[in-house]
Amino acid sequence: MSNFTAKQKECLEMMENALFVELTTIDRNGFPSTRAMLNLRNKQQYPHLVESYKTESNPLAVYLTTNTSSEKIEEIMENRNACLYYCHPETFHGILLQGTIEHVTDKIFKQKIWQDGWEIYYPKGEEDYSVLRFVPNRLKIYSNFNVQKEKI
Amino acid sequence: MSNFTAKQKECLEMMENALFVELTTIDRNGFPSTRAMLNLRNKQQYPHLVESYKTESNPLAVYLTTNTSSEKIEEIMENRNACLYYCHPETFHGILLQGTIEHVTDKIFKQKIWQDGWEIYYPKGEEDYSVLRFVPNRLKIYSNFNVQKEKI
Repeated sequence: MSNFTAKQKECLEMMENALFVELTTIDRNGFPSTRAMLNLRNKQQYPHLVESYKTESNPLAVYLTTNTSSEKIEEIMENRNACLYYCHPETFHGILLQGTIEHVTDKIFKQKIWQDGWEIYYPKGEEDYSVLRFVPNRLKIYSNFNVQKEKI
Repeated sequence: MSNFTAKQKECLEMMENALFVELTTIDRNGFPSTRAMLNLRNKQQYPHLVESYKTESNPLAVYLTTNTSSEKIEEIMENRNACLYYCHPETFHGILLQGTIEHVTDKIFKQKIWQDGWEIYYPKGEEDYSVLRFVPNRLKIYSNFNVQKEKI
């Protein structure tokens, strides 16, 4: 982690331990749209992904899995601006990452991300399994009623 | 509640019981920006606001309090599109409200919303206390891996 700034390390700490993450995209009417998603940056829950993140070109990139049939796929095709929010609301400690998101269609990559047991999320079958890759360009840390910002 | 649809009632149930709410605005670069906020629709935590909501013209409107000096105030002046997200991530049960948000400057109204004890959030004093009013036009209910939508 020697190339991370102090803020990025703080960010990564929360990303690797949070139970969930919230992704917000912008729909075609120009309204933001938030939903909770599995936090595939969580090291304890998804140890099989730790290596993939190490070989990533962007060390704060995040993978997300979703249904191909979901609205967010269409939204992302039209507007790639998105944000991810990790938080402990009880302490008002939160991390916001703003950046761009893309729909990854490479089959080998998708297979690498796949985890047994996820079949319950894809009742329509394999065709409905999609992977997204989020690349941040800015982070905000909310803590102690302050906001700290940094470009990435 | 006789004028609420079934979905709106489900929505209100979660709004009135959630511990926090997440507001997303869109910044001037066109990126969404999410943060946790006090859920002033929570009936147990903010009983002094129940009457104000009853006299509201929009029965699903939400008040939020924030610092006048925060970035969201500027963001809202330029782009009023916003969303509120309430959720129990453990069950992937979530409510999304999309709509518009405005900065309320009426002093009598702001005084009605104020709660003793909030001084800790406004170290810069009274001038830094701002009230926002969010009016939804669409709701989405996420539950059982489905999404139900309704215009409001």
